[in-house]
Amino acid sequence: MYEGVFEPGSSHADADGYRSDVLEALRHLNMTAMRYPGGNFVSGYHWQDGVGPREKRPTVLDLAWHSKETNQFGTDEYIRLCRKMGWLPMLAVNLGTGTPEEASNWVEYCNRPAGTLYADMRASNGSEQPYAVKLWCLGNEMDGPWQLGHVPADQYAIRAQQAAKMMKDADPSIELVACGSCTIDLESYMEWDRRVLEHMGDLADYVSLHRYVGDPNNDTPDYLAASASIDRQIEEMDAACRFVQAKRRSNKRAYLCFDEWNVWYKNHETDGAGEAGQHLIEEAYDLEDALVVAGFLQSFLRHADVVKIANLAQIVNVIAPILTRGDELLIQSIYYPFEMMSKRRKGDSLRVVVDGPSYEGATNGSVHYIDTSAILGEGALHVFLTNRSMDEASEVCIGVADSAIVSSESAELLTGPSPRATNSFEDSDVIKAIPFEDVSIQHGQARCELPPLSFVAMTLKLG
Amino acid sequence: MYEGVFEPGSSHADADGYRSDVLEALRHLNMTAMRYPGGNFVSGYHWQDGVGPREKRPTVLDLAWHSKETNQFGTDEYIRLCRKMGWLPMLAVNLGTGTPEEASNWVEYCNRPAGTLYADMRASNGSEQPYAVKLWCLGNEMDGPWQLGHVPADQYAIRAQQAAKMMKDADPSIELVACGSCTIDLESYMEWDRRVLEHMGDLADYVSLHRYVGDPNNDTPDYLAASASIDRQIEEMDAACRFVQAKRRSNKRAYLCFDEWNVWYKNHETDGAGEAGQHLIEEAYDLEDALVVAGFLQSFLRHADVVKIANLAQIVNVIAPILTRGDELLIQSIYYPFEMMSKRRKGDSLRVVVDGPSYEGATNGSVHYIDTSAILGEGALHVFLTNRSMDEASEVCIGVADSAIVSSESAELLTGPSPRATNSFEDSDVIKAIPFEDVSIQHGQARCELPPLSFVAMTLKLG
Amino acid sequence: MYEGVFEPGSSHADADGYRSDVLEALRHLNMTAMRYPGGNFVSGYHWQDGVGPREKRPTVLDLAWHSKETNQFGTDEYIRLCRKMGWLPMLAVNLGTGTPEEASNWVEYCNRPAGTLYADMRASNGSEQPYAVKLWCLGNEMDGPWQLGHVPADQYAIRAQQAAKMMKDADPSIELVACGSCTIDLESYMEWDRRVLEHMGDLADYVSLHRYVGDPNNDTPDYLAASASIDRQIEEMDAACRFVQAKRRSNKRAYLCFDEWNVWYKNHETDGAGEAGQHLIEEAYDLEDALVVAGFLQSFLRHADVVKIANLAQIVNVIAPILTRGDELLIQSIYYPFEMMSKRRKGDSLRVVVDGPSYEGATNGSVHYIDTSAILGEGALHVFLTNRSMDEASEVCIGVADSAIVSSESAELLTGPSPRATNSFEDSDVIKAIPFEDVSIQHGQARCELPPLSFVAMTLKLG
Repeated sequence: MYEGVFEPGSSHADADGYRSDVLEALRHLNMTAMRYPGGNFVSGYHWQDGVGPREKRPTVLDLAWHSKETNQFGTDEYIRLCRKMGWLPMLAVNLGTGTPEEASNWVEYCNRPAGTLYADMRASNGSEQPYAVKLWCLGNEMDGPWQLGHVPADQYAIRAQQAAKMMKDADPSIELVACGSCTIDLESYMEWDRRVLEHMGDLADYVSLHRYVGDPNNDTPDYLAASASIDRQIEEMDAACRFVQAKRRSNKRAYLCFDEWNVWYKNHETDGAGEAGQHLIEEAYDLEDALVVAGFLQSFLRHADVVKIANLAQIVNVIAPILTRGDELLIQSIYYPFEMMSKRRKGDSLRVVVDGPSYEGATNGSVHYIDTSAILGEGALHVFLTNRSMDEASEVCIGVADSAIVSSESAELLTGPSPRATNSFEDSDVIKAIPFEDVSIQHGQARCELPPLSFVAMTLKLG
Repeated sequence: MYEGVFEPGSSHADADGYRSDVLEALRHLNMTAMRYPGGNFVSGYHWQDGVGPREKRPTVLDLAWHSKETNQFGTDEYIRLCRKMGWLPMLAVNLGTGTPEEASNWVEYCNRPAGTLYADMRASNGSEQPYAVKLWCLGNEMDGPWQLGHVPADQYAIRAQQAAKMMKDADPSIELVACGSCTIDLESYMEWDRRVLEHMGDLADYVSLHRYVGDPNNDTPDYLAASASIDRQIEEMDAACRFVQAKRRSNKRAYLCFDEWNVWYKNHETDGAGEAGQHLIEEAYDLEDALVVAGFLQSFLRHADVVKIANLAQIVNVIAPILTRGDELLIQSIYYPFEMMSKRRKGDSLRVVVDGPSYEGATNGSVHYIDTSAILGEGALHVFLTNRSMDEASEVCIGVADSAIVSSESAELLTGPSPRATNSFEDSDVIKAIPFEDVSIQHGQARCELPPLSFVAMTLKLG
Repeated sequence: MYEGVFEPGSSHADADGYRSDVLEALRHLNMTAMRYPGGNFVSGYHWQDGVGPREKRPTVLDLAWHSKETNQFGTDEYIRLCRKMGWLPMLAVNLGTGTPEEASNWVEYCNRPAGTLYADMRASNGSEQPYAVKLWCLGNEMDGPWQLGHVPADQYAIRAQQAAKMMKDADPSIELVACGSCTIDLESYMEWDRRVLEHMGDLADYVSLHRYVGDPNNDTPDYLAASASIDRQIEEMDAACRFVQAKRRSNKRAYLCFDEWNVWYKNHETDGAGEAGQHLIEEAYDLEDALVVAGFLQSFLRHADVVKIANLAQIVNVIAPILTRGDELLIQSIYYPFEMMSKRRKGDSLRVVVDGPSYEGATNGSVHYIDTSAILGEGALHVFLTNRSMDEASEVCIGVADSAIVSSESAELLTGPSPRATNSFEDSDVIKAIPFEDVSIQHGQARCELPPLSFVAMTLKLG
């Protein structure tokens, strides 16, 4: 946050201290909700440290990243940034070192009319009007032994239920995200989710999923098949939600909030060496990473009936689509699939059927060479296509069961010279979305040829 | 509290701000112990908010009732009120959002001689002498998911043991009430009590019971049979106490503290809409409610060997025997059985045997038409009688196994025109205790005829 | 602490307020690590009460000993004392009423460079340089129901894991001692240890053992056999550590920290009657107590491969080798075996084989009359011998498997007129180490005759 977004000393800084170049690049990603303040960080974060006069805010030790937190950016600054960017605020409370009461006090600070202690504190910090923050996460990755304040499922369930009840007492209109299994690798996978959801009952509006993937073995075909594994993770978590709903005989089912996901495997430097605003885990993204990010997004889209929220982690510098270096800014490869899809996101997700060849990834299972998803917008059909083949172009024919495609409105292509090709400050245009002209319409169907290792997003007009 | 008892602005206010008309009416109820500060409220209450200079006390959000708590009435005001009224103070500590340490600090504040931090705080707030508060409740209804900080039995047991040990370290002379099952309807009923009592060991002096009853189906006979269900609840909790004592091979057994009970079913408005001192859950009590309140009291009396404490919840306005409206005061129907019995409470509870017709309530089980209990005072026999019949008067003959009744000293009757007859500010004498003259003495026995739907309390002289 | 060590008003007080006579006596004990601030005390201790300007530190109620704690001696004073005495500081964090966060804040206070809140607090209290405290105990005796904040094993395991992770996040170089079973008598013995060690995983560097022994039945032979029971306790805890290491398939094994041990059975006054600096549990030690203390030390020495730390509890006045009365100082019997062994402690513990008669203690099992241990120092062999016989001297012959003993360098003897003989302020030389001249060397072996009820420490020169 302190270098990249909020950088009052930068030549790009706006009146509030935000880098206008970065915000401009972010605006093109059309993000809806922005989660804050973390991540692992949140499990040691006390929100009161970050409000009130800036000169009185303490600089504290951030145990999660072994860094300093100056608290110059806090709740009020975050809300202003959300408003500037049109983001829906999504706050994560501290259930590591924080109490359920501290969490509900934060809801009071943000959402209650003035007249009681914490609401009055907000008013005296400059905002008489409540912030109306609707989305709240009940901690972060509490199932992981690396998390500050980690507890077994039964204990997290108790704490989350306590916090949820109190937070909804403070503002019944909020929606809550319970911590689900943060990785498919922990022994507690699924059992954690069952216990938490059962104990929380109707208080859990969403359950969270996290996923980071990578290509440590340099096995591009398997890596590109990651979306099969992501599909499976989503479907398994949904099964847990449905199981608990059934067992509880409740009308309420928790939906999925995929609130951390990205490619992350190259840089594991997580030690801030005791300093503030360090450039930790900056990951240089390549073409195959961009195709995998497209895979995440396509998987979410195919499961839009249950995945209601998804948050790319993170936005700038730390495993992010945008890097800064001094006053420079670099758009990374993974920026493009996000942009290509987010500008076509309005509408209803369609069920897609693929007829074509498939292959077996070494760890992620069987997938079609072509990964696809589609949205039916107002009179427009948005289609997304990834060609996973490393060497063969693929002829694709797109049809809609009950309509005819009459024209192509727009289409973009993302590809590059090799799976590992990367943008850099020195050569920033290696991986970049370009117009894709080769879409032809015939007999109500669209046809195109996808280059190997490519991602295409197109908008078609229906008759 | 803020409207009804502590109302400095009222024309009835005394020098301390209490309504003298209300206190006068309460005095006739002869209450012994007064529980404070709640109820559900206590699980979010921090006692330190309510001590010290009033202008510095925070106005906080009361999550339990969605109200504001101004903290103008706190520990010191409560103790003064208890002294004014001759009530034994009975404080409930916060085991919802509060810690065992906060609880023991409160014991230090109230009961330790000056010389350490919290005892000195009391002294500097005006009372050099300790308050010697003997009765302390370890939280409130922690088994209920609606309770702030609700936990499963094992977790409450740990927290209660921690608090109890520390509180008794601070003052070994105090007596403690552990939270028992607060309703017979929760799945954890009895198992909660077993676990808590086993883990607390000799630290539990009492275990609490709560009960609210009502007549939502307009079934007066079943409603009046509620005392059978109350008897059963008491006997079941006593069985839990005896079981744990046996298993622990201990000389110490926990006794019962029935610290919340009343009729409550007509008004379920529990939302204070964010304001302070709201008139929530004001219940208008009728004749059948008064007879059921008599049923509670008679059940407690019959089980006086194990029910050592019982507290009507509450005293003014909120489900209470006394209502205020501006400067007016209304005595509700349930006030009378309480008054009739409490003025005859001194002595030993007797075992009573009823010989007469009975009937089967739809949900509460089989009961005699006549509900009765008796106290042997100094040379006097106090007898209490309820006639549950809706339409038949009942001839009653009262005898004592080893003594002769020689005269009737006093007797009062409570009845009314119909089960649903109610006092109101407009017509406040519909349900009211009146002298009962029809008691005759013959052959060492007393005889009288109880009208249908009536309650009688009498004091007889023994030879 | 407040009377005996830190006594600014004493005529023996040095510039920092410490009694120089006491420190001088302690120096001869050559202690390495000094544990602070407790004991049971620590489970109610908040370290922040004891730092900063002394006049602002609160006088608080000490629930563990029913005393007052003035907090005039705190972390900074303790560190200065450690430096003055050459002791390694060993801090115990409060896991009774304290949080894992409070513990990690203390690590920050002590060990982090300035720049964050608590490290800056230390700097502003006078020490810009961190204290580099390496040894930290994760609470005290949390398995005992008498402990403030006592919890079952699973709950302690969670809290200890949380604290350990956060404390090591604050300073990865520290070593941590988890609470093990504090007595062999609790039902949770061994199962507590298994659960705690399994949940903590590699975060547990050490697990603690405590042991207090006595002779309440006046059975000297059995009492002197206590070392058999101490051996067994050590070997059982080591088995728990090895079991968990195996089950976890880890390269890391927890070692043993015997951080409280002593003779304690005569004086059980543990109530400070609400006052500060009381003389509680002052135990008058006799000859047999000194021999049992030698037995503890010999057992630790024999198990030096797994017992890495051991702390005599305590040092002055409270069950201690040194007593003060006004300005007077008394060296108790147990002082001597400690001194005799600690000045010979450098080197490697040897495996010893005893060939000689044995007997069966009533409760502690079978032991040789001669208890022994040995250290191979630089060219020197240190041998320790206890003769448990109440009436017979014992001829002892000492040999080394692969070397010849060539001369005796020094030897001391501790014995006395009877098992119950005791030093007092009036007669302080009853039990005292004296030179032992009767060691003869023949054929590469040493020979001597041990008087009944005696302890000998000798240093022999190897060829």
